[in-house]
Parts: sequence; structure tokens; C-alpha cells
Amino acid sequence: MLQTKFNMLTIDAYRLHFVTYLQEKITTKEPKSLYEPITYILQLGGKRLRPVLTLLTAEIFDADYKKALNAALAIEVFHNFSLVHDDIMDAAPLRRGKTTVHEKWNLNTGILSGDAMLISAYQLFESYDANVFRDLAKLFSKTALEVCEGQQYDVDFETRDDVTETEYLKMIEYKTAVLVGAAMQMGAIVAGAKQEDALKIYEFGRLLGIAFQLQDDYLDAFGDPKTFGKQVGGDIIENKKTFLYLKALENASNEDKVKLIDLFQNKTPLNQDDKIAFAKQVFVSSGADKLTQIAISNYTQKAFAILNSLTVSENKKQILIDFGKSLMERTV
Amino acid sequence: MLQTKFNMLTIDAYRLHFVTYLQEKITTKEPKSLYEPITYILQLGGKRLRPVLTLLTAEIFDADYKKALNAALAIEVFHNFSLVHDDIMDAAPLRRGKTTVHEKWNLNTGILSGDAMLISAYQLFESYDANVFRDLAKLFSKTALEVCEGQQYDVDFETRDDVTETEYLKMIEYKTAVLVGAAMQMGAIVAGAKQEDALKIYEFGRLLGIAFQLQDDYLDAFGDPKTFGKQVGGDIIENKKTFLYLKALENASNEDKVKLIDLFQNKTPLNQDDKIAFAKQVFVSSGADKLTQIAISNYTQKAFAILNSLTVSENKKQILIDFGKSLMERTV
Repeated sequence: MLQTKFNMLTIDAYRLHFVTYLQEKITTKEPKSLYEPITYILQLGGKRLRPVLTLLTAEIFDADYKKALNAALAIEVFHNFSLVHDDIMDAAPLRRGKTTVHEKWNLNTGILSGDAMLISAYQLFESYDANVFRDLAKLFSKTALEVCEGQQYDVDFETRDDVTETEYLKMIEYKTAVLVGAAMQMGAIVAGAKQEDALKIYEFGRLLGIAFQLQDDYLDAFGDPKTFGKQVGGDIIENKKTFLYLKALENASNEDKVKLIDLFQNKTPLNQDDKIAFAKQVFVSSGADKLTQIAISNYTQKAFAILNSLTVSENKKQILIDFGKSLMERTV
Repeated sequence: MLQTKFNMLTIDAYRLHFVTYLQEKITTKEPKSLYEPITYILQLGGKRLRPVLTLLTAEIFDADYKKALNAALAIEVFHNFSLVHDDIMDAAPLRRGKTTVHEKWNLNTGILSGDAMLISAYQLFESYDANVFRDLAKLFSKTALEVCEGQQYDVDFETRDDVTETEYLKMIEYKTAVLVGAAMQMGAIVAGAKQEDALKIYEFGRLLGIAFQLQDDYLDAFGDPKTFGKQVGGDIIENKKTFLYLKALENASNEDKVKLIDLFQNKTPLNQDDKIAFAKQVFVSSGADKLTQIAISNYTQKAFAILNSLTVSENKKQILIDFGKSLMERTV
């Protein structure tokens, strides 16, 4: 408990340092119509999970977190770029409870300010020497392209009824998990960690990222409305084929399965509350809820197992384990 | 004349080598829905002016053009990325006579495939060693951000009636000319040219790029419909505040000026042909046509003057001059 508390305080400290740096670095240049939306989205808040992981990982590998601030900011700017463009594609009116960029301004601003953010992210690597710059930019490009591919799979899956578990897992890996892995590997690169260790910490982040997204799916249905923040059942309303849904289709009674499919194709008209209630009931009766929790636990354990061969102190491994556990115990 | 012909043949040869390389390198990976639009837009054709300049410049500085192929491809991929996103912003149905990406597929595909192209452009620099990689990526980021700023100014100017000549020139410099400069500088960087020469060739390209865009403005109104390719008068129909328009406002009689402003605010209903005819008549009577040609000539001469201090042979300078002249004598 003390460990966890100590760890969480450290995480909070990294977050504070990061946000302070972000505030310093964000300036609204000319043309204002291009840069104001960037300042806006970057100041909307959020958990700052990815940049914090970059700073934390740099210190795990014995570098001052300050050295990793620009890499961390690049990750956060990229993440927010992807949110701006994804919000256009999802026609989302709100992001973190505030108006999305394309709604507050317009479609063109959303596209162009997003483009400028993607480019600005690369520029943040320019403070590092040539070899570090190339390693960071290469990892960044590979990851950014995978994130685009993940988003494309997500879009494609909306109109498909035959998405498999394997495909779903690949989609969340690309859309979410690889950026968590890359955020950590960048901390390792900046710190000059051995390549073997840098790749291992990427793998740790990637596996934890998959567990994190499965946890997100789980909380979306079974989270406590008091603490969850978002509307519980949002994925069900949007007919998202999440891990819970796919596991339910695999294991539910034939009758429930047919009903669930009809419901997710909007064939059976049902009010939102009843739809959420029915889907959740099938998620439970089919055992999909338990199977999802088992998958979360498996990915987390696989991530932890990687730490065994990492050449850092046991104390530092424990910090990573505590952080991983805290993510899985979250209610938000 | 022989010089020009020799030069033009060389340009054609570079273009052929470039297009062959492009065909080799373009593969439609998975997910197809992300990569097919990229293959589509890159194969639509076009003058391939920018990548050809990268190859040509590499040879001007004594490197084999083959060494510059990836940098040239990065420039072309970026240019096409900007076309895909600009076409969305302009709601353009056609590009090079074919359906635009967002029309052929949809808005989301246009955004996401564009994003993937921007990232892929950076990846093309990865074949160079660390220092060249950093120099290329830095120049690329700076230029790409300026192109975004130029596009933003262009969007902003649509709803403004007080755009100055200086502002207009800055807009076309950012939106068009800096990429021509960067295309040439990348050839110099890949060839290991002296930094001073690399910066001079950038400046040459930038000035020639401004002249090129002013020429585009001129041809849009006064081009020969038989050779121009696009609809003559397109800018007038779209109420674009081009250099011709701004110069006309500055120098036309008060009566013509008021009429022109009203016409460009769609206050006076007039059929397209009459509108084009009237605007062109004012462009001529105000002397705006001559002033535009003078500006084109001035920028071209400024570009040529830079070559004086370039440390390459007179023969090679002549190739650049011939190329510049051929651009200014074009009818397409």
C-alpha cells in the first residue's frame, strides 16, 4: 500500500512537471487561426498517461526526466493530433467534456491544425543529437502509422459483422497500445538504455496498453457511474464490437446471441436503458465479463513477466509493477 | 535553343526515372482501405516538378541522382498529402481531371490516408545516415509547417477584403514556394553540398517558386484555353484575390474598382463568361497584367542572380537558368 502510494505520488509529480513544461512551450503563433486550436486541445487536460510514462521510463534507466521532456511532449502532441482527427471521423461533439476542435471552429480548422500538430511533434525531437533524433523519429513514424492503421481498422469494423477476437485485439493494439509502448521506449532511448532493454520496455508498455484498453471496454459497461466519468454503457449504445461483445457472442445461449446481434444492428427498437441492461445481462450470463477480466489479468501478467529480464534494480521494477497494478485497479 | 532542348530532355529523363521509382515503391499494404487511396493519388500523374528538382539539384552538386530518389519521393508524397487535405477543405470534386480522394472514398478516408502519407514521407528519410536524416527531417518539418500556415492564410483570406500585396506574397511563398526551395535544398543535402550552397539553392527555388505561382495566377486569366488544361478564369469565378486582382484594385479607375469589388463579393449577378470578360478587361486596363509579368520577371531575375555566387560550374548554372526560363515560358 505504501509502495503504491509512493508510486502514485511520483506519477503525480511527473505529471505536474510535464504539465508545467507543456504550458511553457505552448505559444499561439501566427496565423492564430491555425495555432489557437492547438493550444486549446493541449490544455483540455486528460490523464497525461503517455508523456508521464516517457519521463518515468527515462528515470528508470537512470536519466534525469528533464532530458525526456521534449520526447514526452511529442508523444502528447501526437496523441492530441489523433484525437482531433478522430473526433472529426466520429463526428464527436465533446472531448473531455469540452467542445471538440471541429465543432468549436470548423472542419477545415480541425484538419489543418491537426496536420500542424503532427509536424510539430517531429520538431520536438530536434533538440536531441543526430543518432537519438533518428531513433526517436523512426520509432515515432512506425508507431504513428500503426495508430492510423488501427483507426482505419476501427472504422472498417463498424460496417462488418464478422470481426474476430484476433482482429479486435490487433485493432486495439495498433490504435492504443503501441503508443504506450513507444512512449516508454522513447524514455529508454533518451536515457541511452541498452537496445535490448529499450525493446523490452516497449513490449511491457504494449502489453500493458492492451490490458488498459480491455479494462476501458470493461469499465464502459461495468464501471461505477459515480466514478467512471463517461456515460456507462456508451459502447453498447454505439453498437461497438468490443471484447465483451465478441466474448458474449462466442459463449452466450443461441437465443441471447440472436437477440444481442439484432440489438447491435438496431433491428430491435429498445430504449437506451433497456438495451444497456440487456447487453450487460448477457455479458454476465455468458461469462464474457469474467473472460474479459481474465484477459486483462493475462496481459498484465505477461507485461510483468518481461520485467524479470530487464537490467534495472528490483526497486525500479517494483515501481513499474505498482504503476501497472494501479492502472488495472482504476475506476476511471 | 540547343541548351534549352538539352535541358528539357534531361528534365524528362529525371521525371521518367522518378516515376519508375515511384511505381516500384508504391505498394498497397493492409488495411487496403487506408493504402489504396494513397496509391491512387500518387499515380494520378502531374508534372512531378518538385521531385525532379530534387534529383536535378543532387546532380548539380555532383551526386548520382539515385541517391536522392527517397528524398524526392518524400517531397512528392508530402505534396500529394497536401493536395488530398486541401481538396477536402476546398470541397474540390476533381484533381488532375480525376475524382478527388474524399469524393471517390469519403471524408474520413481523405483525412486518414492523408495523415498516413505525411508520416510515410518522414519514413523515406530513414535510408540516409543519421546526420543527413536529421538535416532532411528538420528542413522537411519547417517547410511542412509553413505549407500548413500558407494554406491557413489562404483560407483566412477568403473571408477578408483587406488582404495586402505583402500578405498575398507571403501566402503563396508559404503555400507553394518554400516546398520548391526545400525540394532543391534536399538534393543539395543528399549530395553533401556546402551548407552555404545548400541555402543558396533553397533561395533560388523559393524565388522561382514565387514566380511560378504568379505565373499560375497570370495563366489562369490569360492562358490559352487550348493549352492551359484548366478552365481559364477559374480564379475569377472563385473570387480569388490573386496578385492580378490586388494590382487591379490598386491601379484601376474608381468606377472599375467598385465594380470589381462588387463582382468579387457576388453582389452583381453576372453570368460566368461576362464576369471573366469584365475582370480580364480591368486587369488589362489597370495595367495589372503587365505589373504581374514584371513581378514574375523580377522574381525570376532575383533567383538567377543568386546563382552567381554558387560554387558550381557555369555549365550547371546554365542548366538551372534554362530550367527557370522554361518554367516561365510555359503555357500549362
